[in-house]
Amino acid sequence: MSDFQAIKEECCEANIQLPKTGLVDITFGNVSVSDPARRVFAIKPSGVDYDDLTPDHMVVLDYEGKVLEGDLRPSSDTPTHRCLFLNFEGIRSVVHTHSRTAVSFAQAARDIPCMGTTHADYFYGDVPASRDMTAEEIAAGYEWETGEVIVKTFAERGINPLEIPAVLVRNHGPFAWGPSGAKAVETALALEVVAEMALKALQLNPEAPLIAQHLLDKHYLRKHGANAYYGQK
Amino acid sequence: MSDFQAIKEECCEANIQLPKTGLVDITFGNVSVSDPARRVFAIKPSGVDYDDLTPDHMVVLDYEGKVLEGDLRPSSDTPTHRCLFLNFEGIRSVVHTHSRTAVSFAQAARDIPCMGTTHADYFYGDVPASRDMTAEEIAAGYEWETGEVIVKTFAERGINPLEIPAVLVRNHGPFAWGPSGAKAVETALALEVVAEMALKALQLNPEAPLIAQHLLDKHYLRKHGANAYYGQK
Amino acid sequence: MSDFQAIKEECCEANIQLPKTGLVDITFGNVSVSDPARRVFAIKPSGVDYDDLTPDHMVVLDYEGKVLEGDLRPSSDTPTHRCLFLNFEGIRSVVHTHSRTAVSFAQAARDIPCMGTTHADYFYGDVPASRDMTAEEIAAGYEWETGEVIVKTFAERGINPLEIPAVLVRNHGPFAWGPSGAKAVETALALEVVAEMALKALQLNPEAPLIAQHLLDKHYLRKHGANAYYGQK
Amino acid sequence: MSDFQAIKEECCEANIQLPKTGLVDITFGNVSVSDPARRVFAIKPSGVDYDDLTPDHMVVLDYEGKVLEGDLRPSSDTPTHRCLFLNFEGIRSVVHTHSRTAVSFAQAARDIPCMGTTHADYFYGDVPASRDMTAEEIAAGYEWETGEVIVKTFAERGINPLEIPAVLVRNHGPFAWGPSGAKAVETALALEVVAEMALKALQLNPEAPLIAQHLLDKHYLRKHGANAYYGQK
Repeated sequence: MSDFQAIKEECCEANIQLPKTGLVDITFGNVSVSDPARRVFAIKPSGVDYDDLTPDHMVVLDYEGKVLEGDLRPSSDTPTHRCLFLNFEGIRSVVHTHSRTAVSFAQAARDIPCMGTTHADYFYGDVPASRDMTAEEIAAGYEWETGEVIVKTFAERGINPLEIPAVLVRNHGPFAWGPSGAKAVETALALEVVAEMALKALQLNPEAPLIAQHLLDKHYLRKHGANAYYGQK
Repeated sequence: MSDFQAIKEECCEANIQLPKTGLVDITFGNVSVSDPARRVFAIKPSGVDYDDLTPDHMVVLDYEGKVLEGDLRPSSDTPTHRCLFLNFEGIRSVVHTHSRTAVSFAQAARDIPCMGTTHADYFYGDVPASRDMTAEEIAAGYEWETGEVIVKTFAERGINPLEIPAVLVRNHGPFAWGPSGAKAVETALALEVVAEMALKALQLNPEAPLIAQHLLDKHYLRKHGANAYYGQK
Repeated sequence: MSDFQAIKEECCEANIQLPKTGLVDITFGNVSVSDPARRVFAIKPSGVDYDDLTPDHMVVLDYEGKVLEGDLRPSSDTPTHRCLFLNFEGIRSVVHTHSRTAVSFAQAARDIPCMGTTHADYFYGDVPASRDMTAEEIAAGYEWETGEVIVKTFAERGINPLEIPAVLVRNHGPFAWGPSGAKAVETALALEVVAEMALKALQLNPEAPLIAQHLLDKHYLRKHGANAYYGQK
Repeated sequence: MSDFQAIKEECCEANIQLPKTGLVDITFGNVSVSDPARRVFAIKPSGVDYDDLTPDHMVVLDYEGKVLEGDLRPSSDTPTHRCLFLNFEGIRSVVHTHSRTAVSFAQAARDIPCMGTTHADYFYGDVPASRDMTAEEIAAGYEWETGEVIVKTFAERGINPLEIPAVLVRNHGPFAWGPSGAKAVETALALEVVAEMALKALQLNPEAPLIAQHLLDKHYLRKHGANAYYGQK
């Protein structure tokens, strides 16, 4: 029995959920789950079919990027996940997909505007599209620098990653995160849903307004924070 | 055996139908079913997976909002349902979803225009988008005031809620209703279908006309009212 | 055993195929199958779930509209089917659906333009949208007059219904037909597919050209007519 | 046991995968698999349902177009496949579909622009739409000339068919290819996915830029070529 059995199982289960959500085609997606106290995380191996995954396939790395367990090569996006675990305190799982409508916003270089309560239930404002990466950043270490650009986007725009737990990497696609593998996958799904709603709303009315601040506050805060009253407990 | 067994079973069955229609993602939807003679209704508990629902999970409340039966917290949207039962005489079930295209119209602040017979078979005219809620309304009691805004929308525009059994709450999403849980869910599905048809028709022809009044009358009245001749009986 | 067993079975089977194609929501669709030599046809009963259909549910009528067999009320669209059997010689089955993209063209009052070979494989040119029905026509006998407007549309525009086996009834939806129940359902599916392709192509290029006449001829004629060489035999 | 058992089995399996990907409606698609050393290929028979296919149904032809094995008529598109095998050295499988969004680009006479990393993972630049075929080409031998137009499109635009393994035949639809039946089907699926992403991105921002060259290089080359590091090995 592995020392890291719990995060390997949670990570495997979350990866298996991905194609069931309809978010991923082929092998375009991966989930990691961390144990922040021990500064380690488990992640999907690169290019393996979701149908074949077992907890033993998960690769375990420490926060410095050293492989601690696993025979397979970890996802090529591993340095991006690692960068987010190091910089976004309080998250335990990162999900990357190429879900189609969220990718479209990333390719259009547009934030997903917060136009309704579905969005407000998950994200406390617009989901940001990051800036273009430079040739230097890509040459220096593409996947790590992808994480750096995400972190800088949140810092420069003053966004709290616990309040807006997703980003669109320009010309690439979405990353989402959360307190568990299951919740991070749910957030990645919510992101695709609100992207589709925003796309269609903009087609119906290119001048459609953002949600009013008081309605955004109400919906976000009835599900999150000290006075939340949605769900059981 | 509960005193409210019949409405709990009907309510449970209607909630279970919701994800099968493709109308709801995650837990974005709920159905209530009332017994108007006794002034009570059953409703889905908040944030529980549809797969796990049994009639015993349903929460029963009276029309004043007091819980009569059930161990779980009722849907956070319960006051909206209650407001509609109190104000729209003749309805027995209310359905709330975040179905994607209907939400898009709500976010675009547009009515769903009645452009064809599919629409006319269910709704005797445009399905209205309500006005924005004020900060005061949201502070006063968000979910109850959501119901009030729906009721006012129908009153101000002179719409009969039995003839147009659905509404788009601005920046939020659709509510639909009907004489039974099954029929209210069917109406919520029809609403999403006609929203998609209207979106695409407007893409093909932004100046596409509404359905002619005589065709609207014909289709609505062959399914509804004293001289209906659709279906068996 | 019914005298009309063969057409009842073919009709039932074709109706059961309808929801499997994704063409119909709820009960928005029906198929009829005729025996032209005996001037009779079988049709789906009105408002019955597809899952429950058996051949014995089919209603058999003669070409004058008299019910010969069946305990249920036939589809409310029966007079439209009957009108097409009487006027379009050589067809044996009629399918009516509210498939979403084809309906959108009907609501937008636009023909489905023949933009590619998928279309040309089934339809030898644009699929026409009929004109609006007048209040007089609707009052005189809505469903029969719907058939009359289809027949007039083909006559006025000089279209051969065997070469373009479908129509979009304005503000309503598609009818398709063919030599058998299975083939008519396949044509109704092809219609929805080409409607979606045309909608998206027009979004990408509002000035996109029609298919060239020589390519239309080639594709239509390699599947149809004396020199066809597609399929086995 | 056939002399060509291996390619017949690989070809059958790839054809059976086609409808599971959602790429094909009805019988709109076919796959061939070649044995380049022996200059032979297996291909789907024309107009046969995917559900019914077994390896014995596959038709085997040599590169001159002579049938070597099989009782059924080969796909009507066989000469197009043969032309690609003769001209694009290094490919072993060709897939033709009428997948809906890729067809839309073909009908709109637009290349699929390379707007993001999903695209760059499969195609090293825009996927070209071929020019219109002339009446003379169609009369001379439509399916063979379709192949010729594809080959000329790549030659005239200086595109390497191993780097951009797909094309949109104008007013018709996509062909994709690859080193195996499974990989060619995967590429045909990726093509449809990136077509949908590009369509939606252009709806959100008609002026959306192409992917930067350094990001295109990075993504394409991390999956392809001597220094690839995606997947296992």
